Amino acid sequence: MLRAVIGVYDSGFGGLTVLRALRARLPDHDFVYLGDSGRAPYGGRDADTILDFSEQCVERLFEEGCALVIVACHTVSCVALRHLQQRYAPSKQSARRILGVTIPAAEEAVGSSAGHIAVLGTARTIASGTFDAEIAKLGPHRVTSRAAPLLAPIVEEGWEDTEIARLAIAKYVEGLEDADTLLLACTHYPLLERTFREVLPSSVRVLDPGPAVARALEKWLARHPGFVTAGSGSIRALCTGEPATFRKHGERMLGAPLSTVQHVALIDGRLAHRDRVEIATGQVVRPSTPPEAPSVAGHARR
Amino acid sequence: MLRAVIGVYDSGFGGLTVLRALRARLPDHDFVYLGDSGRAPYGGRDADTILDFSEQCVERLFEEGCALVIVACHTVSCVALRHLQQRYAPSKQSARRILGVTIPAAEEAVGSSAGHIAVLGTARTIASGTFDAEIAKLGPHRVTSRAAPLLAPIVEEGWEDTEIARLAIAKYVEGLEDADTLLLACTHYPLLERTFREVLPSSVRVLDPGPAVARALEKWLARHPGFVTAGSGSIRALCTGEPATFRKHGERMLGAPLSTVQHVALIDGRLAHRDRVEIATGQVVRPSTPPEAPSVAGHARR
Repeated sequence: MLRAVIGVYDSGFGGLTVLRALRARLPDHDFVYLGDSGRAPYGGRDADTILDFSEQCVERLFEEGCALVIVACHTVSCVALRHLQQRYAPSKQSARRILGVTIPAAEEAVGSSAGHIAVLGTARTIASGTFDAEIAKLGPHRVTSRAAPLLAPIVEEGWEDTEIARLAIAKYVEGLEDADTLLLACTHYPLLERTFREVLPSSVRVLDPGPAVARALEKWLARHPGFVTAGSGSIRALCTGEPATFRKHGERMLGAPLSTVQHVALIDGRLAHRDRVEIATGQVVRPSTPPEAPSVAGHARR
Repeated sequence: MLRAVIGVYDSGFGGLTVLRALRARLPDHDFVYLGDSGRAPYGGRDADTILDFSEQCVERLFEEGCALVIVACHTVSCVALRHLQQRYAPSKQSARRILGVTIPAAEEAVGSSAGHIAVLGTARTIASGTFDAEIAKLGPHRVTSRAAPLLAPIVEEGWEDTEIARLAIAKYVEGLEDADTLLLACTHYPLLERTFREVLPSSVRVLDPGPAVARALEKWLARHPGFVTAGSGSIRALCTGEPATFRKHGERMLGAPLSTVQHVALIDGRLAHRDRVEIATGQVVRPSTPPEAPSVAGHARR
């Protein structure tokens, strides 16, 4: 058996709101968090790219000794989870497992709703239709899904408690007043929970799926006791972007200090440690093979 | 000599504000526009990724018969222009040429300014420091650069004329009141020009660099008459994202209808035509090689 730490993967630092919930429920477990912050946001990307990136990140967490990986990103969970499971964990006997956030979130929303669920997420999450499909499996609820592309950048600016946030939320929830449950289907949005409550009538339950994901994980671990052993409650964070930026935003998301933030770089299509973090300034010129053979340029030049 | 059309490359549809200016000054020329909208935005990406993407896109425009490519994206111009020029157009005898927007924009700002230039752009554009460097070559101006990551999403939502836009701009220009020139160093921002003027004191000149880029191109063509012959004023647009979305946003940026929008897909690290546009919904599962050899997974699996 591999070393018993839980891997948490997200496109950036937003997934730390999920880790916050996991840690609150499983305080004795150790976590490795990988945020692909150098390539975030995923929300506007095509599916092929998301599959590529998520394979690289999940493989990296396996290398870190994670037998169990939680895909905390709703975009990846909605688009690529089945692919990742079929590729890396095709059977119930697989030594590694990958779990997402979509089904626990859908179950929680259905459990909470009297009939009309609103879902806000990234453009890609909403375009996938995966939430509509998962909710439809659970009951005959009406679902209104809407992309809210401005909300994650607002959170990244730290502008949650501004008039800008209130006005943007008001625009995105226009016409959703008769929903009874609003699912925050992007890991950034829990930081806007209070602002959502200010804007929406009190008849709408604003639902951060993080705690539901944590409860689902706790139950899964009870059924799969071999996967994880109790640890010391540590968190080690890896990121593909600038560690200082990751730490600054990440600690707000986690609601706690991050003791370890390591940088990993994309090398030959895989994420690997890089000793020195170079933040490129000015023109970046890469020594290149001559362009005589452009048909293989996409692969040959690295 | 290759067929005489001018290629215009941008990370998405924002570059159509530059094409709008080029076309106004060069109404008899034909253009092919490539917007990498399936992988936009570039603004938060690392330099390596930007080099990769821009090589693919420039090669695609060469294949379309463009001997001359204008990099309309400020992020790419600030980070990758020198690399692209060294790779594809290393000498004054090169059959192909690549021009950017940074130097014409910097020259226009310096020509306009009495001493203090403010620059707003994407995180990557600002982090590159390229505008500071180019302006410093031209004179001893004070430069205040600031990333404004919310502004492009606001334009993409079509929210230019909202209180959200005014409040966001007011936050980004806080403390810049004593600048005399504000350079809009992102191709989305010209759509916010009026809103900028509403928010800023009239002592600040709000500068859309598009017309300066067009004048610089006109002069360059006068010195390089072999590169482009007059055409019929046509525009053909290619995009890597969803063509309908591209057209919807693109026509606002161009200020005119787009007659032709074709989709190109990323295949084996190159951009190629794809006959049918499939918009993925639900879980996307890719037939994959088994994960036994993860060290080459990044390249082998396509």
